[in-house]
Amino acid sequence: MSEQKPGLVIVGSVGLDDLDTPYGSEKDILGGSACYASISAHYLCRPGIVGVAGDDFPKEHETALAGKGVDIAGLQHEKGKTFHWQGKYEGDMGSAITLNTELGVFSNFKPSLPEAYKDTKCLFLGNIHPQLQLDVLDAMKHTPAPKGELIVAADSMNLWIDTTPDLLKKVISRVSIMLLNDGEARMLTGKSQLLDAARAVQAMGPETVIVKKGEHGAMILSGDEIILLPAVPLSTAKDPTGAGDTFAGGLMGYLAKTGQVNRDTLFTGAILGTVHASHVVEDFGMRATMKMTPADVLKRVQVLHRMSSFSMDWFRFLS
Amino acid sequence: MSEQKPGLVIVGSVGLDDLDTPYGSEKDILGGSACYASISAHYLCRPGIVGVAGDDFPKEHETALAGKGVDIAGLQHEKGKTFHWQGKYEGDMGSAITLNTELGVFSNFKPSLPEAYKDTKCLFLGNIHPQLQLDVLDAMKHTPAPKGELIVAADSMNLWIDTTPDLLKKVISRVSIMLLNDGEARMLTGKSQLLDAARAVQAMGPETVIVKKGEHGAMILSGDEIILLPAVPLSTAKDPTGAGDTFAGGLMGYLAKTGQVNRDTLFTGAILGTVHASHVVEDFGMRATMKMTPADVLKRVQVLHRMSSFSMDWFRFLS
Repeated sequence: MSEQKPGLVIVGSVGLDDLDTPYGSEKDILGGSACYASISAHYLCRPGIVGVAGDDFPKEHETALAGKGVDIAGLQHEKGKTFHWQGKYEGDMGSAITLNTELGVFSNFKPSLPEAYKDTKCLFLGNIHPQLQLDVLDAMKHTPAPKGELIVAADSMNLWIDTTPDLLKKVISRVSIMLLNDGEARMLTGKSQLLDAARAVQAMGPETVIVKKGEHGAMILSGDEIILLPAVPLSTAKDPTGAGDTFAGGLMGYLAKTGQVNRDTLFTGAILGTVHASHVVEDFGMRATMKMTPADVLKRVQVLHRMSSFSMDWFRFLS
Repeated sequence: MSEQKPGLVIVGSVGLDDLDTPYGSEKDILGGSACYASISAHYLCRPGIVGVAGDDFPKEHETALAGKGVDIAGLQHEKGKTFHWQGKYEGDMGSAITLNTELGVFSNFKPSLPEAYKDTKCLFLGNIHPQLQLDVLDAMKHTPAPKGELIVAADSMNLWIDTTPDLLKKVISRVSIMLLNDGEARMLTGKSQLLDAARAVQAMGPETVIVKKGEHGAMILSGDEIILLPAVPLSTAKDPTGAGDTFAGGLMGYLAKTGQVNRDTLFTGAILGTVHASHVVEDFGMRATMKMTPADVLKRVQVLHRMSSFSMDWFRFLS
């Protein structure tokens, strides 16, 4: 059944999170980058996840993922505990405070791709050890775009910039799209001006670099194009967990749907990612993105359009 | 000659600046909020400045202002030294380091408005002591919009939030548009989420609140509308001095030109302000905005439009 093959393969963590925010607490809810990204992409394409769960991973979470059309053939099951993160947010919830991390079965995670996943044309490498990201790239049948047909994006984190910068740079040199936050871009390149930092990452190989700036939106460089994305201003954020992976899932879901990377598809996908992220933070875990419909998304895209897009007609008096 | 009356009255500092940045140094160049704002507005309306200069203020600076159509009938001359600021920028030039400030004649500045300025319908109160801002408001013939016909915007700084918060709140309660930066908005209101802080400033009176976020652009609240403005990404910033006043000058120049405050005029004016600010930082002092033509502005508005404005057509698949 080739129609069942995932259109987007997502490699990352699958976890159980304990969250504590000024708006409440939750225990053992579904978390992990692969889950956040796949739920964000679910109505745009068929996402397939590659991750690992322990024997304590509740069947209901698998049912929930599968119920949203997520292919879980790549979800490995190992003896032991599922990756478990305990985090806390305070004040303006700008950054997470990690209270405890139990890697469990994730500590020996070796992504093993179902045969049907290997000729995917769209791949999202969530934030895992750069060597594992390279292993996945090696297992792929297609060459990364723009040379080949594989649209591949990678995410990372400051830990890998600190501990395995050379491996990380190898990953960066092999992907079509590199995602980082502003602090990571500056840390990786040593450039203080964000545009310079983003250009320096681009010079490492990827045609497209996306610098995430949290409440300030994001900046995308793709070839010579620059796209400036706002964030939806929110005063109702309850739980920021997974916002970055949800952004990536929306973006990659749209690129998988269209099969093209250009300024318009990147802009459209990034707006979807932005809108999905604005949904996900409004409730704990993936509760909001599980319920989100295309009509909800369209409504918020319209709001964001009115807030951030202007008309060139207003400037006719200048010519 | 009523056509010679200024369409926009700008009250603020007139100064001589010594600047030191990684890109060079300059001595005794024209500075001050009133000058930056008026030069930014010069091709949109006839700006008139209200400020004070000492007897060391070079005639050539007055000639330069007048040569750009700035009305200097409100520029008072006093015995003593002109306001003199020595500033330095390092690293990513995110904030100025003040090396020395000599207030000179500015320490006794009492704005005295030429009769012809008092019935202006557009007023920008640059960052000066809130009591002086109130004195100017008292001298105006028109009542501030939206109740009356006077479109009035005020800028301020952390110093007045610290030392004279009650006077500052009185100013805020009487203006149509309040401009602050993100740190000031949080400091003034005690709200950590920017949208909440901006709403709290709005609740103090002004229909429109503009929160400036430096390299991250700005957020405008006006009634129930929200406008999200990007900043032009630059790697060629040489001297950030006056960017905020240049932004305000472009915005207020456009509001003076149209005589209307609504979502479209605010958005248009703020984009002009953003573009003017992106010019001003490219060279020392007002050198770049003195030379800037409407064609230059239009060109950069087009660049910013391509970077930041998207099409709702891209989202038709959602409905």
